[in-house]
Amino acid sequence: MAAANNPSINRAQIAQLVRESLRRHVQNGTSPQASQGPNPLVVNISARHCHLSQESVETLFGKGHQLTPKKWLYQEGQYAAEESVTLIGPRSRVISNLRILGPCRDFDQVELAATDAISLGFKVPVRNSGDIAGTPGCMLMGPAGFLEMNEGVIRAAPHVHMAPEDAAFYGVENKSFMKLRVGGDVGVTFDRIFVRVDPSFKLEVHIDTDEGNACGFSQDVPCELIK
Amino acid sequence: MAAANNPSINRAQIAQLVRESLRRHVQNGTSPQASQGPNPLVVNISARHCHLSQESVETLFGKGHQLTPKKWLYQEGQYAAEESVTLIGPRSRVISNLRILGPCRDFDQVELAATDAISLGFKVPVRNSGDIAGTPGCMLMGPAGFLEMNEGVIRAAPHVHMAPEDAAFYGVENKSFMKLRVGGDVGVTFDRIFVRVDPSFKLEVHIDTDEGNACGFSQDVPCELIK
Repeated sequence: MAAANNPSINRAQIAQLVRESLRRHVQNGTSPQASQGPNPLVVNISARHCHLSQESVETLFGKGHQLTPKKWLYQEGQYAAEESVTLIGPRSRVISNLRILGPCRDFDQVELAATDAISLGFKVPVRNSGDIAGTPGCMLMGPAGFLEMNEGVIRAAPHVHMAPEDAAFYGVENKSFMKLRVGGDVGVTFDRIFVRVDPSFKLEVHIDTDEGNACGFSQDVPCELIK
Repeated sequence: MAAANNPSINRAQIAQLVRESLRRHVQNGTSPQASQGPNPLVVNISARHCHLSQESVETLFGKGHQLTPKKWLYQEGQYAAEESVTLIGPRSRVISNLRILGPCRDFDQVELAATDAISLGFKVPVRNSGDIAGTPGCMLMGPAGFLEMNEGVIRAAPHVHMAPEDAAFYGVENKSFMKLRVGGDVGVTFDRIFVRVDPSFKLEVHIDTDEGNACGFSQDVPCELIK
């Protein structure tokens, strides 16, 4: 599941505000994007998870079943559900406790990191959320039944959610690409952060667990979003 | 173990030569470092492994035991040994078949990716090979006994081996940093590739499995070394 944040006590946001404040005082303004944007930059790691349609939830959990929010995420209205499923891969290898993110969507999609895909024994393409045509499928198992997904297993491309005011500040458009520079001991720049602009979005970059591990990400590591 | 290459049939080197040749014909020379250097750029992924002293090998495998080369690596004289050990972490969690790389060194060192360290349940610092003071230890188990390492478990910093002629070409010095730009669907630049210059070294970047998975590395993905 995505690193979750209670909207009222947002540790990531506070950490970023402190970082930016320190940076303004300590450095000589080399990070204008990070320090002067209209909104603080939040970076979160999305662990493997799935999105399901209401119909698929009912197949897995029973007629009329509604997802129960367990932890609210940083994006308004999004949550990690109490419910999780078992994913069965093409070689009958299994991932237990695959978290469902709510609310329901109009399609089924499983988002894995490359390490997860390797452990299951299949190749998963890098795709933007929703772009699932021609991707591999899998089987999901819930307490009330099985769901056969013919497609929808992806490695989500790293991406940034932002509102139009953020896009205007960074000078980027919806569906363009930006870079995320992650400092620290390792030092990694993600060169193709897919930009998703919507008035409902809060400024947040999502990278997966492999990407987070590779760059040694923690909320203490400085991050900078660059056009 | 590091991705291994038989010196006489070097798939990585051939792939790189083909890539460079194609690039010269297809593109308009935007990658001078990659296409005009004195030696082809080889990038290999090092999976978790250990280096041991001869004394430690004898503790684990018996008095007088010598490592047996199983697969020669790209760097002259380096090999993955037939021998492997079991690593026991601080919470009694285990990694089996931890490959030993030879020849023996004068210290013991275990190199893990962040994902390995997380699965074992401890934190491992990013260090250059040999810089092990103050790092965590672990227990190794072999057929003839146990070896208690008080320190030496690291996440190896991504690094590049090169000869003085490569360093002159790139304009870098021993112990400086370079960048490795990895293309493909994900697009990741490693901003702190530690430079190790020695007349015996062949030009080769080593990244670990997490870094390789994060950038979607394969021998078909274009890589560029940048000062």
